[in-house]
Amino acid sequence: MRTLRFDETTLELVAINQTKLPLETEYIRISESRVLYQAIKELAIRGAPAIGVGAALGLYACALRFEDKAPEGFLYSFDKTVEYIASSRPTARNLFYACGRMSAASRQGTSIEDIKESLKNEAFSIEKEDIELCRAIGKNGEKLIRDGAAILTHCNAGALCAVEYGTALAPIYEAKAKGKAVYVYADETRPLLQGARLTCFELTEAGIDTTLICDNMAAGLMAKGKIDLVIVGCDRVAANGDFANKTGTLSLAVNARHFGVPFYVAVPSSTVDLSALTGDDIVIEERDGAEITEKFFKNPIAPESVKTYNPAFDVTPGSLVTGYITEKGVFKSI
Amino acid sequence: MRTLRFDETTLELVAINQTKLPLETEYIRISESRVLYQAIKELAIRGAPAIGVGAALGLYACALRFEDKAPEGFLYSFDKTVEYIASSRPTARNLFYACGRMSAASRQGTSIEDIKESLKNEAFSIEKEDIELCRAIGKNGEKLIRDGAAILTHCNAGALCAVEYGTALAPIYEAKAKGKAVYVYADETRPLLQGARLTCFELTEAGIDTTLICDNMAAGLMAKGKIDLVIVGCDRVAANGDFANKTGTLSLAVNARHFGVPFYVAVPSSTVDLSALTGDDIVIEERDGAEITEKFFKNPIAPESVKTYNPAFDVTPGSLVTGYITEKGVFKSI
Repeated sequence: MRTLRFDETTLELVAINQTKLPLETEYIRISESRVLYQAIKELAIRGAPAIGVGAALGLYACALRFEDKAPEGFLYSFDKTVEYIASSRPTARNLFYACGRMSAASRQGTSIEDIKESLKNEAFSIEKEDIELCRAIGKNGEKLIRDGAAILTHCNAGALCAVEYGTALAPIYEAKAKGKAVYVYADETRPLLQGARLTCFELTEAGIDTTLICDNMAAGLMAKGKIDLVIVGCDRVAANGDFANKTGTLSLAVNARHFGVPFYVAVPSSTVDLSALTGDDIVIEERDGAEITEKFFKNPIAPESVKTYNPAFDVTPGSLVTGYITEKGVFKSI
Repeated sequence: MRTLRFDETTLELVAINQTKLPLETEYIRISESRVLYQAIKELAIRGAPAIGVGAALGLYACALRFEDKAPEGFLYSFDKTVEYIASSRPTARNLFYACGRMSAASRQGTSIEDIKESLKNEAFSIEKEDIELCRAIGKNGEKLIRDGAAILTHCNAGALCAVEYGTALAPIYEAKAKGKAVYVYADETRPLLQGARLTCFELTEAGIDTTLICDNMAAGLMAKGKIDLVIVGCDRVAANGDFANKTGTLSLAVNARHFGVPFYVAVPSSTVDLSALTGDDIVIEERDGAEITEKFFKNPIAPESVKTYNPAFDVTPGSLVTGYITEKGVFKSI
């Protein structure tokens, strides 16, 4: 299983359809802008790094099929396609970054063949950089995992949000590759259940011993001494080390501190946002309450008149973090 | 809305059908042993105190309809009915307690009319004792709630598990009755969602401002200073004050301590079990993982091959409890 790959025989982007997980493992083959747009918009390709790489490889696959005979026409078609793909998700930074790099690459070369070569190189570079970044996080984090360790994780910061490995799960994959026994407890991660749907899927596919729990059961496991360490991903780190991640991360960090369990954050160094001095500067998105009361359920689980509060993220103070696992090493503070 | 009541006009037990909540508010009228048995067995009547009172009032309603003309025949019918109703749930202590008291009451009096009178008095006493116990917990706990307070609760320890008021929610009802503004945050309480389904239902029906959150969001609210106090119910207290309650309670208690939020346990003094010296002596029931992965959902939320861990309760150390709210007063320790 690989989240994304470029099929060099058919010259298509092949992506796992994450909207069908965990019920079905379906791959989408992409060589047309409309299909790429829909795949990103409808979350078949999701997770910031995966979206960036998917856009780059997908744009290259589309460009290979342009019927323009002159470089001017080819570039016009490419610019239009980039603009269209960049509009598929409004706030995905990696999407704009990848589209920008592919646009710049399209200006390298005078013949259509040269331009295609430049696009290929750039798309493959973006893919390779993502894989190397995640692998470096994996290698650095692996040293923290003893043979036989039980690791608790939250949400999905795994291979499914990148090309391979992911961030929080990369050290676990690396430990397994090194022959260590690893046991993972995966929080289901309400309300959107990314832990149950995605983390449990990719870890069991990889043959890793995985146990699903409800988010509220993590404390009980820590109290019993069943958790050796916690590793979570991260959406944004402030200058003082406070960080935002999927709602529920703060509760885990507080419990980990109380029960003396090491708590690590896996984070590409590019995720540090020095414009945010502390966690207070990180604005938290509040989402529709129907995600709590209706989505996934046969029937609404609460009376219609009840209010809801549905923050997508919470902020964990840096003081609760044992270490930040980055591609450059593991650091006690940011 | 009242969970249970005896209709003195039709001489029936009237119980809210909790299996239909929150989608439908349906009342079941009970005057026949088969209907009473099914109502308890299939959780239309649930919650230990409610089961006890429901059995007592229901047995009385059934007895009123016996066609026996001689006291011996009447008692034979009553004993058979008690035996049948007592078999509806295997481990409900309140059920056996109520059945035992009704059996003893049936031996008071010589004529059928006298026996019916004795059964009526006993059933109404059991109901009255439950109401008074919950009301006393409410009055004692109300003093802890300032005007305008925001209270976090977990699972359902409210009117729906008793006749009126319940335990953890009784102080909230009492505060509202005294004219205080109260705001409740209700944990949804995975996996069985008693908070979303039952607590949100009864609080909104009572006109109390209620906001539903996922269990993992409580820490974020505490960090923002949005929670004034936590009140939870309790299934069993050990001699040293450790207590078992619905899974997720421990995490709340740890977070409450971390963020300096007072944490109270509402508990009838009969719930203290001196045979358990500490929480370690309380055996925790592990339930079917399908409650996490399938129940309530349109489709399974996790891959079939994943393992699950589904403890119904967790144990919170007494050291994390600010006070125990009992019918006899609020105590710092048990």
